[in-house]
Amino acid sequence: MKNDGLMFVISGPSGAGKGTVVKELVKKDNIEVSISATTRQARKGETDGVHYHFLTKEQFQKMIDENGFLEYAQYCDNFYGSPRKQAEEWTKQGKDVIFEIEVQGCEQIKKNNPDCVTIFIMPPSMEVLEKRLRGRGTETDEEVIQKRLARAKEEILKAPEYDYIVINGPLEECVDDVLSIINAEKLKSKRFRF
Amino acid sequence: MKNDGLMFVISGPSGAGKGTVVKELVKKDNIEVSISATTRQARKGETDGVHYHFLTKEQFQKMIDENGFLEYAQYCDNFYGSPRKQAEEWTKQGKDVIFEIEVQGCEQIKKNNPDCVTIFIMPPSMEVLEKRLRGRGTETDEEVIQKRLARAKEEILKAPEYDYIVINGPLEECVDDVLSIINAEKLKSKRFRF
Repeated sequence: MKNDGLMFVISGPSGAGKGTVVKELVKKDNIEVSISATTRQARKGETDGVHYHFLTKEQFQKMIDENGFLEYAQYCDNFYGSPRKQAEEWTKQGKDVIFEIEVQGCEQIKKNNPDCVTIFIMPPSMEVLEKRLRGRGTETDEEVIQKRLARAKEEILKAPEYDYIVINGPLEECVDDVLSIINAEKLKSKRFRF
Repeated sequence: MKNDGLMFVISGPSGAGKGTVVKELVKKDNIEVSISATTRQARKGETDGVHYHFLTKEQFQKMIDENGFLEYAQYCDNFYGSPRKQAEEWTKQGKDVIFEIEVQGCEQIKKNNPDCVTIFIMPPSMEVLEKRLRGRGTETDEEVIQKRLARAKEEILKAPEYDYIVINGPLEECVDDVLSIINAEKLKSKRFRF
């Protein structure tokens, strides 16, 4: 008896460390990470099909029209979306699929796929979040950092809407917590095939 | 932030191996096993407060009257019940409490405690179940074995009413599965204290 894989949305504010968690998860057997599609230009070092699927606006619109996205959204003139086809192929093969998604996209993917499981990665404290945002070193403009912190606070208010909340203190514990969730979700009686 | 512990009901047909699973779980930190109360006579080798709390019918009735049981039932003239007080003390200390309960008792404990989590331990197959029932060697009467198998089949039909179903193949995997469930349940956003 081989059950279908499940879809897991991993979300959380910028600086919570969700990217690092996802990088660890994908090392495990039977877990795949969905690669987003975007209409923005590839940056230096980004490879099509690895970091993103880079599409033209026309290609992206065509996929929208064909119901090709589990969720999509527009930020600053660019579109971002989670392609449906590859994810559904993986789950049919019994693989679990992780979507690393902005807080805004989670509601949409859950609406389109009530069976998908949503996990909010929470920073251990606002102090740690601020330290992480500053520590990245990509942004030193105080105003930008304050804006990101304010946005993170707003996003944290959405945490109760998720199925699970995992605090990202020590990385290994956080990854183990997510793996527990993945395992336990497969054991739910509603997913059991008699 | 220390959350209350949770209550977990572990149930399943005779021969599924739930007792063995519970014995492994109780070795873990922060997991306690509820000791049932009964009005039946202690058997040789059984110690009061270890295997059961042995009570008189009067004592048992008094506890019923005082709402002292999370669930109780009568089998063959004897009463069996899960005492409330100790379990609630443990959960307040942040410990998780396991109840090893017959399939019949699960519905009652869930009704009295909607927050408790129910896990059905499933034998890997009816063949294995039969082998285990025969292998115990305590019962060689074919009629008794057939009756137990028939009862196990009836009990397995109740599995979809549980929150989780764990197949007890290799013991270690089964224990890991239950530990995943315990961990994941604590990460549910509804249990998160903001």
